[in-house]
Amino acid sequence: MIRIGILGFGKTGKIVANEFLSDPQFHLSWVIRNTHNASHKYASRLLGHESDAGEIFSSADIDAAFFIDHPIDALVDFSGSGGLTFYQRAAEAGVPIISAISNYTPHEQALLHSFSALTPLLYSPNITLGINVLLVAAQILQKIAPHADIEIVEEHFKGKSEVSGTAKKLAQVLQLDATQHVNSIRVGGVIGRHEIIFGMPNQTIRLSHESINRAAFGQGAIFAAKFLIGQPPGLYTMETIIAGMFRQNIPVY
Amino acid sequence: MIRIGILGFGKTGKIVANEFLSDPQFHLSWVIRNTHNASHKYASRLLGHESDAGEIFSSADIDAAFFIDHPIDALVDFSGSGGLTFYQRAAEAGVPIISAISNYTPHEQALLHSFSALTPLLYSPNITLGINVLLVAAQILQKIAPHADIEIVEEHFKGKSEVSGTAKKLAQVLQLDATQHVNSIRVGGVIGRHEIIFGMPNQTIRLSHESINRAAFGQGAIFAAKFLIGQPPGLYTMETIIAGMFRQNIPVY
Amino acid sequence: MIRIGILGFGKTGKIVANEFLSDPQFHLSWVIRNTHNASHKYASRLLGHESDAGEIFSSADIDAAFFIDHPIDALVDFSGSGGLTFYQRAAEAGVPIISAISNYTPHEQALLHSFSALTPLLYSPNITLGINVLLVAAQILQKIAPHADIEIVEEHFKGKSEVSGTAKKLAQVLQLDATQHVNSIRVGGVIGRHEIIFGMPNQTIRLSHESINRAAFGQGAIFAAKFLIGQPPGLYTMETIIAGMFRQNIPVY
Amino acid sequence: MIRIGILGFGKTGKIVANEFLSDPQFHLSWVIRNTHNASHKYASRLLGHESDAGEIFSSADIDAAFFIDHPIDALVDFSGSGGLTFYQRAAEAGVPIISAISNYTPHEQALLHSFSALTPLLYSPNITLGINVLLVAAQILQKIAPHADIEIVEEHFKGKSEVSGTAKKLAQVLQLDATQHVNSIRVGGVIGRHEIIFGMPNQTIRLSHESINRAAFGQGAIFAAKFLIGQPPGLYTMETIIAGMFRQNIPVY
Repeated sequence: MIRIGILGFGKTGKIVANEFLSDPQFHLSWVIRNTHNASHKYASRLLGHESDAGEIFSSADIDAAFFIDHPIDALVDFSGSGGLTFYQRAAEAGVPIISAISNYTPHEQALLHSFSALTPLLYSPNITLGINVLLVAAQILQKIAPHADIEIVEEHFKGKSEVSGTAKKLAQVLQLDATQHVNSIRVGGVIGRHEIIFGMPNQTIRLSHESINRAAFGQGAIFAAKFLIGQPPGLYTMETIIAGMFRQNIPVY
Repeated sequence: MIRIGILGFGKTGKIVANEFLSDPQFHLSWVIRNTHNASHKYASRLLGHESDAGEIFSSADIDAAFFIDHPIDALVDFSGSGGLTFYQRAAEAGVPIISAISNYTPHEQALLHSFSALTPLLYSPNITLGINVLLVAAQILQKIAPHADIEIVEEHFKGKSEVSGTAKKLAQVLQLDATQHVNSIRVGGVIGRHEIIFGMPNQTIRLSHESINRAAFGQGAIFAAKFLIGQPPGLYTMETIIAGMFRQNIPVY
Repeated sequence: MIRIGILGFGKTGKIVANEFLSDPQFHLSWVIRNTHNASHKYASRLLGHESDAGEIFSSADIDAAFFIDHPIDALVDFSGSGGLTFYQRAAEAGVPIISAISNYTPHEQALLHSFSALTPLLYSPNITLGINVLLVAAQILQKIAPHADIEIVEEHFKGKSEVSGTAKKLAQVLQLDATQHVNSIRVGGVIGRHEIIFGMPNQTIRLSHESINRAAFGQGAIFAAKFLIGQPPGLYTMETIIAGMFRQNIPVY
Repeated sequence: MIRIGILGFGKTGKIVANEFLSDPQFHLSWVIRNTHNASHKYASRLLGHESDAGEIFSSADIDAAFFIDHPIDALVDFSGSGGLTFYQRAAEAGVPIISAISNYTPHEQALLHSFSALTPLLYSPNITLGINVLLVAAQILQKIAPHADIEIVEEHFKGKSEVSGTAKKLAQVLQLDATQHVNSIRVGGVIGRHEIIFGMPNQTIRLSHESINRAAFGQGAIFAAKFLIGQPPGLYTMETIIAGMFRQNIPVY
């Protein structure tokens, strides 16, 4: 069984923990959270499982020996940029790191790079399989059909005020001005939908991704953990992994 | 200018001829059709252009010297399996051949193979760029997300009685039973829409292609002609060309 | 505040209870369930609310005085056909009844009719606003465009084996053979999507409904309860209510 | 047979003429166009029909006796605001008028009103059945689900520079600020697609209309002509006709 430590136990962190708890290939060793809430309780119990797994620790209680006393095979971070403080020990122990944090500062990004010299480190703000498939496929299509007009449509719940980071990332890799070519729809409770439209004079291609629920993040972390274990040190993203899988899976005739 | 000869001047053949006539990189040299209708008139005039191009010949009038007296750089066939009778002379002259014919018999397919030893020969029943992008992308996605449930939806005009050949081809390359996983919708005047749905527990990916009009076939033939000229002899399909373009255009990081 | 009693505390019953608990216009008085589990606990507490509401009773413990001792303004049933045993007392007390049960037997339907002589009784297997909007709008469109070809597409999670009851109902009101005109897609975790396509020679109209989560059932029950209180006795459905709202809201020029 | 006169023989006018020529319930009596091109030829012949119908007249040649010498049952105008100069005579003869012209000035609109005292006069910039169904249905849905967030998405070919007039009209009847709630997508050769999204917390309703080709305008004019003949004088729109059809076709239970 692959032993996992998780940083963060907020809304998404809980769902991610639950995905690892539900997968027989994994053992959730522990969870570190910022508060003292539920300290030393088991994440598994709080999430309705019938066994003990994922003991919860407060970040204030983590000392130098923690990573030695509580060994893991991969570290998964859905906390915030503060989770970075724990990466050094994981990196020194050669433990693969999966970071799904948005908005690192340049200084923090430099730290990520330095850790990636020691261990395989994956950094992807949107770690779902589907979004990264779209990122890669869209870039290839743009090369195959360079004259196609490309527009990005993203739909999310009414309360989401800013443009989706994923849509901005799509625009960036396609070298489109996001202020011109990202169309943001805000209605009701839509969890998340991204569509890339390739318009040609006589035909239209659409690539779309719909989120059903946040467990997709947990499945993305599972996918990443399985991939990263055994890889050489370096900086990875879901996008580079998916691009590699595209390369290996081009149909052969 | 690239000189083109076209076999067939039916509904689709006319539209294809028109696309070549409208593209300044091409010169439509001639059109061969089965009947004597409009013999020695210019396809260009019949299609509303203001200059003479694409003289029309009846297939009954084609003799051994025709391909020598009327040299072309590529032969494009939207006629029917009968067009095959002209391939030998083109092949012997090393002229690339683009065949968009459905439903060759095994004997006819064997002929295609023999001609492809002499000249680059492309054979694709659906020669549009978009459909072939879907064919290739869907196979890659199936490998990346092997547990996804896959369904194919195809929508066409009410009068189309059989299941779309493209949908059957999609099912075949994805190793799906077409009778179970192709959903055919027949309504009104829909020109053609194909969607491949990849359903995962927490997210859904959709690849879709909508035809706006049949000029997409002409654009596909243009795309194929540009690609084929200069290639070594062999049997090509739009799918293999697009797969090659996927391979060459994987994003590099 | 409108006092509500709920029959059923299964997966959907809990979500419906939660919607009533979260709406300041309502007070959840009690919940009756089949088992003795959690008897006399508060539904509110089990659902994470910080106050006491919705005391849970076992159906075995309900006696003749219950409806007198525990008065309510509307009864909401998401249990099963067994919930029907409690309707008589509610009907005799003139309490409006909202039943979201599928598959009543003819005998049970006769009982519903007899109760509806005493109290307003709404019966709708799919009580969501959106599906009933589609039911009504589709019937009107069919009359306005009688020559349109109509197809129904329904998408649900892989595990749903039978054709959606809502799709069958749509086919029935449109007098379409469901075995021919309902296209069922089963993929991944799709919660529920229904689309009605009206295909005409030169244009296509699509009406679609996507479920985001089951709270839509609770909102449907809230909508029904507000409507039903104060209405005369009779048999109502969400479809008839929505049809009435269509009639009252035709734009006036 | 219903005798039709058409004003305008441009791109859309030709398609509209062709629809009337192809419908056995109608006889195309004549076409008036601005230029002398093809004067006294038959529209039917120019459009590939095998019989003589729709003699073409230049507007410069129309005298006072024309409407008496060339009687019709309905006048259809796809020309431009200049077509208005022929309405007076039609109105005085009690001939129903169908105007599909955009952008009348206030003065021209006043003229329309005055003519509508004499004859039934329909004025609709977008005369397709489907768009007017959307206009009416969207207004009703907004009343039924007043808390739904509403967004309009319109897709058209790359060359269409301004926001679609239909989308603006949709925004206006829904009292939405078009600059905020109309999302315009410009890609490739998309003929025209309008979608109205009603987002609620737990469900989403979408009404969409796709144009396949401009013959939809001709079919709209046919629909309008059949409706208008026999109606009392007055100002009609497709929207008011469709609203009336909604009212008459509410399902009865």
